Amino acid sequence: MPKEKKLVEAITSMEEDFAQWYTDIVKKAELIDYSSIKGCMIIKPDGYAIWENIQAELDRRFKEAGVENVYMPMFIPESLLNKEKDHVEGFAPEVAWVTHGGMNELQERLCVRPTSETLFCDFYKNDIQSYRDLPKVYNQWCSVVRWEKETRPFLRSREFLWQEGHTAHATAEEAEERTVQMLNVYADFCEEVLAMPVVRGKKTEKEKFAGAEATYTIEALMHDGKALQSGTSHNFGDGFAKAFGIQYTDKENKLQYVHQTSWGVTTRLIGAIIMVHGDDSGLVLPPKIAPAQVAVIPIQQHKEGVLEKAAELAGRLKAAGVRVKVDDSEKSPGFKFAEQEMRGIPVRVEIGPKDLAEGQCVLVRRDTREKQIVKLDALEEAIVALLDAVQADLLEKARAHRDQHIYDAHSYDEFRDIIQTKPGFIRGMWCGSQSCEDTLKEEFAATARCMPFGDQEEISPVCVCCGKPAHKLVYWGKAY
Amino acid sequence: MPKEKKLVEAITSMEEDFAQWYTDIVKKAELIDYSSIKGCMIIKPDGYAIWENIQAELDRRFKEAGVENVYMPMFIPESLLNKEKDHVEGFAPEVAWVTHGGMNELQERLCVRPTSETLFCDFYKNDIQSYRDLPKVYNQWCSVVRWEKETRPFLRSREFLWQEGHTAHATAEEAEERTVQMLNVYADFCEEVLAMPVVRGKKTEKEKFAGAEATYTIEALMHDGKALQSGTSHNFGDGFAKAFGIQYTDKENKLQYVHQTSWGVTTRLIGAIIMVHGDDSGLVLPPKIAPAQVAVIPIQQHKEGVLEKAAELAGRLKAAGVRVKVDDSEKSPGFKFAEQEMRGIPVRVEIGPKDLAEGQCVLVRRDTREKQIVKLDALEEAIVALLDAVQADLLEKARAHRDQHIYDAHSYDEFRDIIQTKPGFIRGMWCGSQSCEDTLKEEFAATARCMPFGDQEEISPVCVCCGKPAHKLVYWGKAY
Repeated sequence: MPKEKKLVEAITSMEEDFAQWYTDIVKKAELIDYSSIKGCMIIKPDGYAIWENIQAELDRRFKEAGVENVYMPMFIPESLLNKEKDHVEGFAPEVAWVTHGGMNELQERLCVRPTSETLFCDFYKNDIQSYRDLPKVYNQWCSVVRWEKETRPFLRSREFLWQEGHTAHATAEEAEERTVQMLNVYADFCEEVLAMPVVRGKKTEKEKFAGAEATYTIEALMHDGKALQSGTSHNFGDGFAKAFGIQYTDKENKLQYVHQTSWGVTTRLIGAIIMVHGDDSGLVLPPKIAPAQVAVIPIQQHKEGVLEKAAELAGRLKAAGVRVKVDDSEKSPGFKFAEQEMRGIPVRVEIGPKDLAEGQCVLVRRDTREKQIVKLDALEEAIVALLDAVQADLLEKARAHRDQHIYDAHSYDEFRDIIQTKPGFIRGMWCGSQSCEDTLKEEFAATARCMPFGDQEEISPVCVCCGKPAHKLVYWGKAY
Repeated sequence: MPKEKKLVEAITSMEEDFAQWYTDIVKKAELIDYSSIKGCMIIKPDGYAIWENIQAELDRRFKEAGVENVYMPMFIPESLLNKEKDHVEGFAPEVAWVTHGGMNELQERLCVRPTSETLFCDFYKNDIQSYRDLPKVYNQWCSVVRWEKETRPFLRSREFLWQEGHTAHATAEEAEERTVQMLNVYADFCEEVLAMPVVRGKKTEKEKFAGAEATYTIEALMHDGKALQSGTSHNFGDGFAKAFGIQYTDKENKLQYVHQTSWGVTTRLIGAIIMVHGDDSGLVLPPKIAPAQVAVIPIQQHKEGVLEKAAELAGRLKAAGVRVKVDDSEKSPGFKFAEQEMRGIPVRVEIGPKDLAEGQCVLVRRDTREKQIVKLDALEEAIVALLDAVQADLLEKARAHRDQHIYDAHSYDEFRDIIQTKPGFIRGMWCGSQSCEDTLKEEFAATARCMPFGDQEEISPVCVCCGKPAHKLVYWGKAY
């Protein structure tokens, strides 16, 4: 049985080669497959189901925040992309160009959207006339294309799925408020649903989005100590509005430019889940995002009553609102356990003839492998409590790991020592000059991940790079 | 107030110019806007919310039928598109070609998917090895591109949203069963959710999908008597499997080709809803698909307690599971009524100072404009019953319209008389030759919509076109 053989091959251990471990997981947990198109992935049922759960949870939060969904065309005429100077410089080098429609060459080539600011601006220009038309708080779920040279499943691919919110407001204050509001929606979602703590903060000028006045970010720490930018929210001020001519008449009948924002998260979040929670046996999924939360695995399933009881338990759990599946295939229980662990199903229920006789079953947590025996009539209650516990413990574990990997650097030498020996975030003061950012990037491949919200502590009076006076605290790190 | 002025302009009446009426509706009910990219539309919040409701209802039915969602790349290498001869001939003339990625010309050009059979085949070729891997019942929700010359919002556009199911089975019987099963899912969905009766049947050879052995279709009749193909399901037999080399080892360890199907519905269904239920005041939406099911409209809203009561009623309806919104804008009640009618919101609740004094409110159905007065403490019950009644009545009305527009033709002369004077479906026998189909198309722009399931009645012994012996009953009609 070639399929069984494939699975039981050990995956590379994290310690040995984290990048290979990651690649093994995405394939062997059957999240993705590679396609004939270089740099584009096929998202398989378990991978897509995680994305559907992310979508459902985020979309609900968006709608509570007054967001409406729309759909824009996937193509952008070259002249439209060219309208905002910084934006086109940021994106033109990495877009795919459509030059022919059917048998004919197009008069103007079209790029496949790498992001849709320009399309929303072109739309808002006509759709917004009066202050009564504001605010516009629109979002779309779609795929975008960026012709990257180096790609990795979920983390960086030529096509990926995302949502992109694009809003227009009467005032600068309202735009700023919305920018921060949506970043907080992302951060809360990551903590509450993905069990992934994040650092919230502002990007430096060097790291901000092409065309934005300010970019806010949530940064998560992966198991290997590298940072992953997990969501961003941009305040455009009235820059795009001026480039595209998006004006409204205010209550005094004066023409004003709108103020805009955009914000997005992508299938990259699936990569984050893998690298924050996974272990050497495979995926570990937080229950709130897991396609199946419980796997019921019958033991000695040929014995009388075992399969029937497994199906009955699954039915009861389903009725209790639990996502459950029964593995009644012909594989051995040991193989089924390995498969459930590889796929990261949070809890497994083992039920065999002995359990049947005792009126009990065995529950095993995926994250800690802790076992407990429960009476069958208390199953629903035990499972619901266990799923809650797993969700909470994963967040705590990830938070502890993150906190243990934040280091303070007070000087260049200290920065060098930390970055060369201790993977994680480095807190260090920054004078504000881009040349210091460039130096740290060239020397250590370290980038300014963000200037954290709230945390205004001045851990040193001088820049961690040049030693000149500095007042900005920055989280530095190597990043995906 | 330019916006009010725009709305109260009368829309073109259906009788006067059905095509213009349709175009007026999609714009004035704010379902879509035109974009800078010729032939591509912007789907606005109300249009997209209808699509979200279609997706939710269909996806639930898919999952009950064992379907799993996945996501394939949006690009197809030219060599892959070329693998199945009939398929490439059908699609190559109308695809958009990507020739450049970033600054570089691609070695092989990529088409933007017009449909994804070739991508699924390329994937299945590697993913399927044993009978244990079958069946595969995958679906994706995405957008596709077909470079059409003539376009109309929802009905035919260069980019549209759809779902495409692609399945692989061990046997021909199982593939045929799945093809029909999914057609029935579509037909039931159209009747139960869209309140739109359909004729289920098989396409002729001339009308079937490029590369299919058999295509099944659901055909709906629009208000103007034209047919709209509303969903299709294809049985590919093992044609694609042979072209792509998709084989599995059966239980006897022999290599076999798989049998495949595909099936899809698109945003075209939104066009169908408009043209089946709409009237001269605008959209009429079936409650099950309406973004808002109830509009609460306060009368003399500046009077004490009116706005508060309107909000209270909306809150109660929301708690009862009804999608409701309050129009508390500064427009006049008359204008709000017109807007609610234009947008097709199934029921409006009017509440003013007099109603307040009487402890009652006024309910008005969008479809019949029938009014009823209900006591406030019986509101939820009355609304739920009314929404059910509207849903059921819309289906009955559409069914009656459809049935009144089905005519039997026993000869060429009779066919000509009917098609020139009576819009609708024409039932007529067909000898099976494509030249008769070509003749009826050239002479009358009539096509074979389908050979209906079940209805094997032989209404005449001879072909409605050539007069030769005929045993196949066909629904003919002009179509979108």
